[in-house]
Amino acid sequence: MQGKFASTRGTLPAVALLAVAALLAGCSSAAAPSPGGTAPSPGGTATTVAAGPGPAMGSQPMFSGRCAAPRPTPLATRREGSHVWVQLVAEPATLPIAAGRCYHAWTFNGQVPGPVIRVRQGDLVTFTLVNRDPQMAHSIDFHAARTPWSVNYQPVLPGHSFTFSFQAGDPGVFLYHCGVAPVIEHIANGMYGAVIVDPKEGRAPAREFVLVEGEWYRSVDPDALETEAPAYTVFNGYADRYLSHPLQVRPGERVRLYVVNAGPSRFAYFHVIGAIFDRVEMDGNPANALQGASGAVVGPGGAAVFETRFPQAGRYLFVNHAFADASRGATGEIDVRPDAAPQPLMPLEEP
Amino acid sequence: MQGKFASTRGTLPAVALLAVAALLAGCSSAAAPSPGGTAPSPGGTATTVAAGPGPAMGSQPMFSGRCAAPRPTPLATRREGSHVWVQLVAEPATLPIAAGRCYHAWTFNGQVPGPVIRVRQGDLVTFTLVNRDPQMAHSIDFHAARTPWSVNYQPVLPGHSFTFSFQAGDPGVFLYHCGVAPVIEHIANGMYGAVIVDPKEGRAPAREFVLVEGEWYRSVDPDALETEAPAYTVFNGYADRYLSHPLQVRPGERVRLYVVNAGPSRFAYFHVIGAIFDRVEMDGNPANALQGASGAVVGPGGAAVFETRFPQAGRYLFVNHAFADASRGATGEIDVRPDAAPQPLMPLEEP
Amino acid sequence: MQGKFASTRGTLPAVALLAVAALLAGCSSAAAPSPGGTAPSPGGTATTVAAGPGPAMGSQPMFSGRCAAPRPTPLATRREGSHVWVQLVAEPATLPIAAGRCYHAWTFNGQVPGPVIRVRQGDLVTFTLVNRDPQMAHSIDFHAARTPWSVNYQPVLPGHSFTFSFQAGDPGVFLYHCGVAPVIEHIANGMYGAVIVDPKEGRAPAREFVLVEGEWYRSVDPDALETEAPAYTVFNGYADRYLSHPLQVRPGERVRLYVVNAGPSRFAYFHVIGAIFDRVEMDGNPANALQGASGAVVGPGGAAVFETRFPQAGRYLFVNHAFADASRGATGEIDVRPDAAPQPLMPLEEP
Repeated sequence: MQGKFASTRGTLPAVALLAVAALLAGCSSAAAPSPGGTAPSPGGTATTVAAGPGPAMGSQPMFSGRCAAPRPTPLATRREGSHVWVQLVAEPATLPIAAGRCYHAWTFNGQVPGPVIRVRQGDLVTFTLVNRDPQMAHSIDFHAARTPWSVNYQPVLPGHSFTFSFQAGDPGVFLYHCGVAPVIEHIANGMYGAVIVDPKEGRAPAREFVLVEGEWYRSVDPDALETEAPAYTVFNGYADRYLSHPLQVRPGERVRLYVVNAGPSRFAYFHVIGAIFDRVEMDGNPANALQGASGAVVGPGGAAVFETRFPQAGRYLFVNHAFADASRGATGEIDVRPDAAPQPLMPLEEP
Repeated sequence: MQGKFASTRGTLPAVALLAVAALLAGCSSAAAPSPGGTAPSPGGTATTVAAGPGPAMGSQPMFSGRCAAPRPTPLATRREGSHVWVQLVAEPATLPIAAGRCYHAWTFNGQVPGPVIRVRQGDLVTFTLVNRDPQMAHSIDFHAARTPWSVNYQPVLPGHSFTFSFQAGDPGVFLYHCGVAPVIEHIANGMYGAVIVDPKEGRAPAREFVLVEGEWYRSVDPDALETEAPAYTVFNGYADRYLSHPLQVRPGERVRLYVVNAGPSRFAYFHVIGAIFDRVEMDGNPANALQGASGAVVGPGGAAVFETRFPQAGRYLFVNHAFADASRGATGEIDVRPDAAPQPLMPLEEP
Repeated sequence: MQGKFASTRGTLPAVALLAVAALLAGCSSAAAPSPGGTAPSPGGTATTVAAGPGPAMGSQPMFSGRCAAPRPTPLATRREGSHVWVQLVAEPATLPIAAGRCYHAWTFNGQVPGPVIRVRQGDLVTFTLVNRDPQMAHSIDFHAARTPWSVNYQPVLPGHSFTFSFQAGDPGVFLYHCGVAPVIEHIANGMYGAVIVDPKEGRAPAREFVLVEGEWYRSVDPDALETEAPAYTVFNGYADRYLSHPLQVRPGERVRLYVVNAGPSRFAYFHVIGAIFDRVEMDGNPANALQGASGAVVGPGGAAVFETRFPQAGRYLFVNHAFADASRGATGEIDVRPDAAPQPLMPLEEP
């Protein structure tokens, strides 16, 4: 372990000190997105915010027992024409990750995955990261943006925030994650989510869901993380989520799954048992379409859109068909029924 | 290990009990495909068959020594217009898997991989699974079908059979496998094979072979399987198969390889040493063609068609170019010679 | 470990003996490429050369401490019309592979990766491998060629050389590597590089770099290599290369990265933090283009061309986004600045 991905706990690196310098330079409060906020600038702006007290972080992040009900922080977002303001909050949270298992997670907005961010191709996105983690620096890394890492993806200190803007020029579905070193640890601890950039020309109507694959490890020691032997591999933060409360769709309707692989390390072959995909778009870009696919490989950090129709009612399973991972919890169920209930894009109620 | 992929040995799950209920409802003998058989129904039909006595299954599936010569059960299949009847038989078998190594395998039709099923796009396939395994339930999961898992991919009890129909609408090459939990164990023990759905418009004439990659583990304990460290990674069931008896092709002729990765867990980068592929079709769908490719990643559960021509006589090796796997036996040889002998689509004689 | 990939150290296999027989047959000195050399022949020609004394190879290839400055052997190459002569030299070398770490490597031309070989689509390439390793046989395997393994990719004995010709018919970027058994060991020890075949119609002007991912293991015991747990995963031979001396490009210009995954075993998801790729060409073939991609999976043995533009100055990181590997050193930096200095295609000065 060395170089730019080495740990920043204990001692903050030079880049963080630069962020501190930026902090001292210009500091209006930017805790909530506001249409009258800062104009897009190449370098972003940093401000101070109140950091919550936060739960004490035990030495062992995973434990047995029931956790308190999660209380996610709603995503703050606001649109004016094609200008969108989005704010994420870095904050620790104790979350259920499997039957009888809790985890002291690092999160965006108190949930794993973080909230789905959805914009339109061509939008100007003004993004603010608020760091309410009392103990350590966090950052953002949007795979949907073209913007310098050294300027806008740098560590934000506890109790501070940072704002920058980018144009969402490429349609698709992308990962976002915390990029503070060691990155493997921040991702493994839960700091990731999905960004959807809807194509300018729109998409055909469909029942849509977001599925983000992640890995939960027994130990967050980076050396342990490198074994790539997670205790659980999960969709949307919880092992076998959607087996007891399946996703619901209607027979014959178009179903669109936005599948993101947050990793940090394992590859996925995404498949739905009993279905064939009419269309798989790598990175969710309509130009990158496969047809009649049984599934597709989604690398860690990658994403794809999977579209199908289920002609016949019944239950279907989706899996990472790498069964070492399916066996660890990377499964879920789709219930195809004429009376399918409306559901959120990424249902997160406890199974 | 939990949820829908938990073990069904010992206690059969609710879905199996449903199958039992179905069994009690309607029960004509359907051991052999018959053109006068059941009309396609959304729910399939279940029947009883005689289960063979079957070999006693030792606690250790892999052992040293010579096994008896394999005696595969021929694939029962029959066509009438565009209606095809296909029957597979689940049955244990002791098979050679490497030089001096035998394995108490779980199989379709007494061979690993199971027989190649080949139909034409648009065919109606009426499929019957006969379970002659005296000890445990098995099922089918066709990646070539769009049909509900909860209805047609359910466990079939020892001594029983189950019939359902599906339309083969998507051209390509696909995996089939047993889907009884723990799936990782049923696949690792050998219950997989390939389905080819020939495109409606046909394909150019070619010398064709089917290569199915699988993994053999020293222990079938699901926890051991999750290590993803197989003793052997193999094409068509046997380590380094086709090194002593190579596949034969003629210089200059089109060669088409249907490559399926049964897993259960490892990814493959398929390559032929000394060749470049004129065409690689992901999932074998002609719409998904790469050109001039050194190889392609085939995920566990995935498949692709690889086409090339060998301008010059000589011997060439095919490999999973992930050399941890090539070293474990995922290799074979193609002998390019003017007098190439005709060979079966998937030659399985002992090397 | 068995079959064609078993070890040739100690005892040379039959194929090597055939090479010896070829040696005895026809033997002009072919140490340097010469336009008046041998006409292309289907079977290649073998000659004897002086083998250097070579460093003594310790039992432990990786050690702590500073190594002597690398002294690579310049690539011998020569062109006459569309006929190109290329010569690589197999020779051991002690090389820095990470801060404070040296490695007794097996190399092409005293560097890891070996020199980039660049030709044009349609070129006739007459290639000579000179084996100056005093201790063991080596060979070449070009993923850019269509030529029989049994004829032209065979072991070349210490102190000998071998020449053959092939037509570079397929545009793209490809791996080359030593293919002597156990291949996993020859690749893991550093015997790999990149071949670029420029398309006949050319490519748009761009700032270009070659990045070859490889793995360094603590032990080269093939069983250890099969664990796929390298000590370092690196681009261009050195962990975190380009963090201290970044690649330099100008804002707005087209940047083209030729990314090759030498393995021997690990898969990569290549990504640049802060960028989206306008174009990803699998195998570098212009016909295989993805658009607007966050990254792409490159299997071991595979390669791709990644093109992007950085609209804004600043620093960006490239990674194998499988963070178990990024954490082991598969990272580097791109410095986007108006005054970007010219750099070699594959900068290898010690970081």
